[in-house]
Amino acid sequence: MKPVNHIKIKDAMTVNELVKQMDSSGVLGAGRLGKAVNICEAMAKDKQCKVFLGLAGPLVPGGMREIIIDIIEKKLADVIVTTGATLTHDLGEALGYRHYQGSADADDEELHKKGFDRVYESYMPNKIYEGMEDFISQNFDSLKGKKSIREFLWEIGRLTPSRSILKACFENKIPIFCPAISDSGIGLMIWGQLAKGKEMETRAFEDLKEIIDIAWTSKKAGVIYFGGGVPKNYIQQAMQLAPKSASYGVQVTMDRPEPGGSSGAELKEGISWGKMNPKARFVDLICDATIALPIIYAALKERIK
Amino acid sequence: MKPVNHIKIKDAMTVNELVKQMDSSGVLGAGRLGKAVNICEAMAKDKQCKVFLGLAGPLVPGGMREIIIDIIEKKLADVIVTTGATLTHDLGEALGYRHYQGSADADDEELHKKGFDRVYESYMPNKIYEGMEDFISQNFDSLKGKKSIREFLWEIGRLTPSRSILKACFENKIPIFCPAISDSGIGLMIWGQLAKGKEMETRAFEDLKEIIDIAWTSKKAGVIYFGGGVPKNYIQQAMQLAPKSASYGVQVTMDRPEPGGSSGAELKEGISWGKMNPKARFVDLICDATIALPIIYAALKERIK
Amino acid sequence: MKPVNHIKIKDAMTVNELVKQMDSSGVLGAGRLGKAVNICEAMAKDKQCKVFLGLAGPLVPGGMREIIIDIIEKKLADVIVTTGATLTHDLGEALGYRHYQGSADADDEELHKKGFDRVYESYMPNKIYEGMEDFISQNFDSLKGKKSIREFLWEIGRLTPSRSILKACFENKIPIFCPAISDSGIGLMIWGQLAKGKEMETRAFEDLKEIIDIAWTSKKAGVIYFGGGVPKNYIQQAMQLAPKSASYGVQVTMDRPEPGGSSGAELKEGISWGKMNPKARFVDLICDATIALPIIYAALKERIK
Amino acid sequence: MKPVNHIKIKDAMTVNELVKQMDSSGVLGAGRLGKAVNICEAMAKDKQCKVFLGLAGPLVPGGMREIIIDIIEKKLADVIVTTGATLTHDLGEALGYRHYQGSADADDEELHKKGFDRVYESYMPNKIYEGMEDFISQNFDSLKGKKSIREFLWEIGRLTPSRSILKACFENKIPIFCPAISDSGIGLMIWGQLAKGKEMETRAFEDLKEIIDIAWTSKKAGVIYFGGGVPKNYIQQAMQLAPKSASYGVQVTMDRPEPGGSSGAELKEGISWGKMNPKARFVDLICDATIALPIIYAALKERIK
Repeated sequence: MKPVNHIKIKDAMTVNELVKQMDSSGVLGAGRLGKAVNICEAMAKDKQCKVFLGLAGPLVPGGMREIIIDIIEKKLADVIVTTGATLTHDLGEALGYRHYQGSADADDEELHKKGFDRVYESYMPNKIYEGMEDFISQNFDSLKGKKSIREFLWEIGRLTPSRSILKACFENKIPIFCPAISDSGIGLMIWGQLAKGKEMETRAFEDLKEIIDIAWTSKKAGVIYFGGGVPKNYIQQAMQLAPKSASYGVQVTMDRPEPGGSSGAELKEGISWGKMNPKARFVDLICDATIALPIIYAALKERIK
Repeated sequence: MKPVNHIKIKDAMTVNELVKQMDSSGVLGAGRLGKAVNICEAMAKDKQCKVFLGLAGPLVPGGMREIIIDIIEKKLADVIVTTGATLTHDLGEALGYRHYQGSADADDEELHKKGFDRVYESYMPNKIYEGMEDFISQNFDSLKGKKSIREFLWEIGRLTPSRSILKACFENKIPIFCPAISDSGIGLMIWGQLAKGKEMETRAFEDLKEIIDIAWTSKKAGVIYFGGGVPKNYIQQAMQLAPKSASYGVQVTMDRPEPGGSSGAELKEGISWGKMNPKARFVDLICDATIALPIIYAALKERIK
Repeated sequence: MKPVNHIKIKDAMTVNELVKQMDSSGVLGAGRLGKAVNICEAMAKDKQCKVFLGLAGPLVPGGMREIIIDIIEKKLADVIVTTGATLTHDLGEALGYRHYQGSADADDEELHKKGFDRVYESYMPNKIYEGMEDFISQNFDSLKGKKSIREFLWEIGRLTPSRSILKACFENKIPIFCPAISDSGIGLMIWGQLAKGKEMETRAFEDLKEIIDIAWTSKKAGVIYFGGGVPKNYIQQAMQLAPKSASYGVQVTMDRPEPGGSSGAELKEGISWGKMNPKARFVDLICDATIALPIIYAALKERIK
Repeated sequence: MKPVNHIKIKDAMTVNELVKQMDSSGVLGAGRLGKAVNICEAMAKDKQCKVFLGLAGPLVPGGMREIIIDIIEKKLADVIVTTGATLTHDLGEALGYRHYQGSADADDEELHKKGFDRVYESYMPNKIYEGMEDFISQNFDSLKGKKSIREFLWEIGRLTPSRSILKACFENKIPIFCPAISDSGIGLMIWGQLAKGKEMETRAFEDLKEIIDIAWTSKKAGVIYFGGGVPKNYIQQAMQLAPKSASYGVQVTMDRPEPGGSSGAELKEGISWGKMNPKARFVDLICDATIALPIIYAALKERIK
């Protein structure tokens, strides 16, 4: 048994120096954060490993957009699965809008009158919908025939006027999936077109061929989840078809396991399903994603530069 | 200000008698449970109100299937939105399989060898996939041309050999939506057909027309969420288009609001978005769905018989 | 393996009938609630078993006072350990004050001006301190020489003018412990006397002899925890000295285990410490105490009448 | 309104550089972590402010011992309130024992046989009790007459053979309080002496005079809580007697507010009680203490060197 080493804070430590101390303590949140970086590092350095990154929750309103774009540009993920909300927030920012620092104690009726939509303590200006409606309306003809949601998303990325998650995915040829895209502001904008009698041919099941093919043909696979929801579950499902299931896993969530939902389920549960290899290196980190992601990425970047 | 009345337990109280005492205490979990039943009762008795029911989490592996079917048959919900997992578990049971009582401390590798997939402390036999593959394979021609996911789901309901959630929705003409249907065992079975070169035309955005039309044309709307995820968010999104937003709301979740995700967001946040009417009656109940749903439904049934 | 049986709601079910259905479903929150009642019933019927009841959290402001008094009067607990806050709220009500139904969104500055202290969504009138100050001041001579906190608490119970938890403990000779009594409104009132130069001889460690003696001489022991904190930990500690450790355990908490604190720790962790017998029947129920306690007690009362 | 700035990870960032980026994002966990460091910095630099530090949960088994000692030696806290468990773990290490890295999935019965007590995924060797029994037994005569628990604790600190939290408090004359000291391994060792017929005169209410006097005479007060329980509540109670209540507040917890207990209560609730000044700068950080404490302290140290 290894002893718990007590963390010692030195002056002007780098994030990675601190994370290594956490790894040396080895237990509870600090120890798990240390392990999470180790496993991310191992995935990044394992040339055989396809990394599947699931992103859920308010990462863009929470200030994580540049980190995500950086991850894509550095090709640290081979596949991304995310929520429609994330892509809506991303597209909104690409169209020139911002999110704002607010309060969870705000008067929501007042916010509504002022045109701000609250995401806990971040505010999104409602005007974002106007910009998006114009964007989707002007580009509908390019989008309507895309057979898969991934193709639809890359096309949005191609058309997006400035730096964005979707644009980075398109430019770096990183497949990005969003099974529940209809459940989002982008979905609403497409509905606006359908309501005018237009047709949108994108298919609901089509992406399964692509994501499962990537899993199926991988020599090794690794999964990283910030938040749960469909992004996690969709990747987990693909892992059932990966030859060795997932060999690495990092999950960051604030959901708890006892209610039994997929979002809070511990990664080890995936072993029973054949989603996680019994010999995999994995860790469940119980932490707010906006805290964990910058720390993990700062430490990782220091290690793999 | 009303005083907190202390709950008094009498002999052989009915569930509704106890819930009324909880309502009279008026605070914390008990008070919120009391309010939740009051609001569900008000929705059930408000003939103008369209009730949108969002169901996420392991409700079928958690023993809630008969309650859900009963809600549908009694037409206490006008619209249902759920996860692909719920429908997969439901279809599995309709095809003759069962879920089993297990342990969260199980050896997952052992379970995998024995062919059981763990959902916290419920086990699903892996054989369920064989039955589903046969079912989907045999019925693929009836399913492949369904333009919307709702039509696809009703068709499964029609074809299902025995009592089920989907069959009850089909027979009672309750629209049931599942935006992320590809993220499920049913999705995997469809993929199995696509992998053989077949085509599946069901469209990703098509359902938006139907659910938004129901919201748009409602005189009043009410929302009930057991769990969050896409089901909640998809209904919330539709509420933005309802003339008065939601006039009633009951949310049951174990997720917490601070990480900022939709699943844990308090209902009042929806006011800023125009999803919830500022004058709506609503309550956030922090409780395991498998505890709250039977209690709420037992109390409700006693009130509206 | 036992199948998950789906709960069926019949008309006007009693609480116990519903709980039996939950027990028959056997999984997740419902299944655990079912087990919790079974274990409480077993403890109540096991004549050899000393039941140690730990009570933490806002049970009195939350409307649970009559249930607790009833438990004491029916001698369903042999030992109670609780927080100073619980006893302060209890004494306040015994002196004629009430708690009030409020809101978690209240303006706390406004409440402060109006003289109400908020306990999430329950309010305590600040005037309670005036009544308590009079009570403690008038009775200080009877209290100051009590050697143990348990004796001090029984003396308060004896002196209390009306029905209360402490009075019920005194009258029914149920030992009640509160190691952190100085951390409470009652503690503050005692400080008020000390500040006038009076002496208070009650000893900090004295109670250990009594509670450990009860554990030590028990043939069997059972533990029931609503909330964690000192009440749980103090009982757990005593279990280390019980000949067979605890043979039964029911824990109801909303705290989670991963941060590693005692309040959220799963009961099985106690096996490593010798606090819980490896063969014990025990269950961790993740539920708000104000929901679980009335349900468990209503079902139990129906079973043991 | 300030926009949410997206965090940018540069190479080899120091912890403080990253925290400043988090502060600039301004929302959710990251924003709160940024604010927490700002407020700690303000407290450290405000010469008028008495800092009350509450420490609960497994901080010593979690590798935080050197950080806590460093805080004391740098006199960054003027008062400490903690749990008996923390002091037991601290004394155990001072007597030459270590805690060990373990697993939450361990076989607790096996651990019990091997003599290890599990604290989630940290193990404490049961032999620690032997060393403590010798220590307390040999020093009982020096301890038994200490009138207050604070005096008792300083005396242990004085007698402790090596570097420890208690020794640092004694040597730096930092008052340390532990109202529920009897609820701990140290308490058990004292019980061992009482069981032999010895007397222990330490009084239960005595410390109130000292902690309230510090609060009462402070020009300003600030509170920092890692974990809740008695340490938080005891400080909160003292704040009711501080002339301006608390002017600064930082709370780090994983407990949630809805069940209504003190540990999870948001700091703003304290305004209604007169514990927190309505104009105070305060933040609730929802985070594992073993993650938050090293980060906050590393950033703080970089700022105040």
